[in-house]
Amino acid sequence: MAENRPPGKHKGLVIINTGEGKGKSTAAFGLLLRAWGRGMKVAAVQFIKGETSKFGEHMALEKMGVEVIPAGRGFTWTSHDLDVDAEKARRGWKTASEMILSGDYDVMMLDEITYPIRYGWIEVSEVIETLSRRPQMMHVVLTGRHAPAELIEFADLVTEMKMVKHPYREQGVTAQKGIEY
Amino acid sequence: MAENRPPGKHKGLVIINTGEGKGKSTAAFGLLLRAWGRGMKVAAVQFIKGETSKFGEHMALEKMGVEVIPAGRGFTWTSHDLDVDAEKARRGWKTASEMILSGDYDVMMLDEITYPIRYGWIEVSEVIETLSRRPQMMHVVLTGRHAPAELIEFADLVTEMKMVKHPYREQGVTAQKGIEY
Repeated sequence: MAENRPPGKHKGLVIINTGEGKGKSTAAFGLLLRAWGRGMKVAAVQFIKGETSKFGEHMALEKMGVEVIPAGRGFTWTSHDLDVDAEKARRGWKTASEMILSGDYDVMMLDEITYPIRYGWIEVSEVIETLSRRPQMMHVVLTGRHAPAELIEFADLVTEMKMVKHPYREQGVTAQKGIEY
Repeated sequence: MAENRPPGKHKGLVIINTGEGKGKSTAAFGLLLRAWGRGMKVAAVQFIKGETSKFGEHMALEKMGVEVIPAGRGFTWTSHDLDVDAEKARRGWKTASEMILSGDYDVMMLDEITYPIRYGWIEVSEVIETLSRRPQMMHVVLTGRHAPAELIEFADLVTEMKMVKHPYREQGVTAQKGIEY
């Protein structure tokens, strides 16, 4: 199938994975994996996950030689100083926008960027402005719940991950290493 | 966050990514990536994608040293001999079930297995029977549209990927290397 594609336009896509279900970040990591498999230059900025936590995807991307920039300190409901979180998010966005505009990357992931946008730490208009000036063939995938309407309007491909069945609620099973983180 | 988990049960999960939207296989590949990052043994059987096609995720998993077993010949609407497809799917399932029961793998992906089930080439009862005999801590992720009700009933975690916006319909953009395949 891959060898026999119908003709059509090619362009860099703005992709959003949103919704209450699982798989938003995971699918974005899968995209990075696929692009990396094709020899494309990929990178990720993680807006919530902190510098000290070691997540499976982070370890994998390190092993693969892919840049992952941490721009958070873990989830904010465990934070004691929201100003520090806001400042980290702002700095993360500055780095991300420079990377997006650098022309050095084929695919970039902005993991959980919807949260700092929702908290008012990053303006959605800034994000859209940077995305609209990105290299023409560059793909950017953004993840997180509650993607703002303006971003959905601007995006090319938007998927909502919907929870149908969840073991942590229904069976009291806890989050598990290698699967959830 | 990863360092500070609430107590709870641990068990291997049966995970289904279904629905009409994007990201079903991609999220499953992301799961493999995450588990591989943790040093877990992972593998994939692909029930639709063929032996000759070179997909980005396939290339990535090869680079990572992960086994990927092709058990298809591309999408069936391009096939001329459905018996051959059925036979390949049957053989793919035999291999997959042996791998599942071997105890050698921590996480396995059965990519697009819902299609051969739907076509009647693999019995859903066989799949459930094998999954129920797998090692207790083993995770299996199954992907594809139209996951059968019995399988959803049996699974621990089910996510529906719902298309909100799609560039190939709305803008005439074609599928793109590194992103779609």
